[in-house]
This record gives sequence, C-alpha cells and structure tokens, in this order.
Amino acid sequence: MKIVIVGASGTMGTYLSNAFAKEHEIVRIDRKSPEIQVDITSPASIENMYKQIGAFDALICTAGPTYVGPWKNLHADTFRIGVEGKMMGQINLVLIGQNYINPKGSFTLITGALAHEPQKNFANASAANAAVEGFVRGAAIELEHGIRINAVSPTVIEASPQYFPFFPGEIPVTMKQLEFGFRKSVFGASTGQIIKP
Amino acid sequence: MKIVIVGASGTMGTYLSNAFAKEHEIVRIDRKSPEIQVDITSPASIENMYKQIGAFDALICTAGPTYVGPWKNLHADTFRIGVEGKMMGQINLVLIGQNYINPKGSFTLITGALAHEPQKNFANASAANAAVEGFVRGAAIELEHGIRINAVSPTVIEASPQYFPFFPGEIPVTMKQLEFGFRKSVFGASTGQIIKP
Repeated sequence: MKIVIVGASGTMGTYLSNAFAKEHEIVRIDRKSPEIQVDITSPASIENMYKQIGAFDALICTAGPTYVGPWKNLHADTFRIGVEGKMMGQINLVLIGQNYINPKGSFTLITGALAHEPQKNFANASAANAAVEGFVRGAAIELEHGIRINAVSPTVIEASPQYFPFFPGEIPVTMKQLEFGFRKSVFGASTGQIIKP
Repeated sequence: MKIVIVGASGTMGTYLSNAFAKEHEIVRIDRKSPEIQVDITSPASIENMYKQIGAFDALICTAGPTYVGPWKNLHADTFRIGVEGKMMGQINLVLIGQNYINPKGSFTLITGALAHEPQKNFANASAANAAVEGFVRGAAIELEHGIRINAVSPTVIEASPQYFPFFPGEIPVTMKQLEFGFRKSVFGASTGQIIKP
C-alpha cells in the first residue's frame, strides 16, 4: 500500500512512518521534507503536493498547528492558527486529495481529546479538533468510490512529556496505542469514525 | 435583563426576540437592522457593534451562514462560508464580546444536530457546528467574572419546512422547544453545555 504521511518529521509522524515502512511504501511529507514539501495552510501547495505524489492508497495527517497559550491572548488573529492549520489544513487535504486518491483509499486525520475534554490554554485546539471531527462525519457520507475517512483522537501522548502538566489526570497514550489507532483506520473498513487510541 | 440578539430578523431570531421582549430589554441586531448593524464575518464590525450597544447581560446568536449544496461544489473557497460565518462569526462575537458583557453575563450560540448527525449537502455545517461546540467547551473554563457560555443545538426546525426533505427521519423542533433551549442557557446557571431543545 502506498501511504502518504503529512507531518512525517513530527513526533507522531516519525513513529508512524517507521512503523508502517516495514510493510508499505511510505511517502514522507512535511514543510521541509527533502523531496516533496507541503504547506497545509495553502490549498495551492496541497494541490502541488498531490500532483507530485501521484496516485496513492492512504493519507495520514499528523500535522496540525493550533494556538496554545493564555486565553487573554486568544483573539480573532491568534485563533487563525488553528483554523488555517489543524482545521482547514486537514480539511483541504481531503477536499483536494479526493481527486488523487485511489478508489477504496482512506484519509486519516488527527484530532484530540481536547475537542470534548477542554484544558486551559487550549480553546483553539478544542474548536479545531471538534471541527475536524464534524467534517469527518459529514465527509464520510459524501465521499465516492469507496473512499473512507476517519480521525484518530488521542489525549496527551507518551512521547511528549512537556505537555503532561497541561493535562492533569490524563493517562498518556503510548506510541504503540497511537499506531494501533491509525492501523484501525487505514487497514480497517470503518468510515466517519473518531478513533480513540 | 438587557439581551442582545444577533440574527434578530431571521426565523429563530424573530421568534426569540418577540418571546423575550415581554420581560426583557431586547437589542435586535442584524446585517441590516435599522439602528445597529453587524457583519459577523468582520471582527471590526463586531467591535463597532459592541461599542454602540454598551454593557449588556446576555448575547444570543442565531446567525450562522454555511455552504449548503452538492459535495462536488464544496472546496477550499465554498468551505469558507461556514468557517467565516457560523464558526468564526460566533467565536469572534464571544472573544470580543467578553470585554463588553456584564459580570455573570452569558453567551448563547447556535449550532445544530448536523455536528453529530450528518446529512448530505451539509458537511460544511457539520464542521462549523462542531467547531462552535468545541469552542463552547474550551471557552467555558476560561471566561472570567462568572460569564457563561452555552450553545443550543436544534435539529431541523418546525418553522423551516423547506429543509424537511434534507433531514429524513428528523422530528422537527417546535419554536417553543427552541425558545426553552435558549431560556435554559440565558436564565439558567450552566456553562459549557450543548443544549438540545
């Protein structure tokens, strides 16, 4: 299977790329990846990325910038970080990518527990995550040619201990659990699902 | 109580304005309202609206444009209708309005069942609604001075029969049920809730 991973140099993307590379062809994409780059905040850049990749079977996105910080600094402008990044970036990967993906292919996006379990400093992520989840449900009943779409929604992840203090009481998700969440989406048959690894 | 209703000339806004006007001071706002207008897609217009209104106790928003139509026409540009309208329009009403609302005031936004129960032609609304719900949960734990925030999430409403064919199997919400949903938010004590009327 030819699997595109957007955000391939991040913590999650690196782990998933290595895990899936044992059995599949992985196209590692990032803002500064050596061969093909993408700026997910730009529909033109996304279109250009797909043109270079050619047909593929699955897209995984683990990239999704949001504004993290004090509420008093969250205003119309800073809110855009999550809107253009984690939300519209991922949504446009699907809206555009549906024209390039093989029949029966799949899109797997990244959301997060903040959509339903808010934490201070993360209201922008709560909105962006929830938006992606709503989109996944809405898109699942529209996509044609057997193309599926799901999102994986972890809480704080084991490999990012710098975030632990912001998520009191959250049991971190291991990288193996995260990988299995993505496996369920990419290699399973479900669509329109929010998978909690 | 001084209650600002944004979207006051719409189906829901008209009903709520009339229902609440019996006991409260209502400030009716719309894009083309006679005294004070607002374009919720513009933060500057929102700021200007609040400056004209002065202090108030509750804001209800029933305005929220989204793209409705065939999936094939939903792309990066058309998706913006819901992002700038129902999503960021309402979010900016809160981010800016928190500086004008009285202590213990409340914001009540409009979402909709599409956030969790998708229908064809409405993926843009599914995303925008879900985003607003995520924001409501995230903002509720951040707002200060006892300010509350909730959203009312109806399915198709009785007074808009033109939408019935798009919502097979949905039992329409009566205007009275809708009013009671907003009453729960404005006059109750809850915050961070998605109220299903």
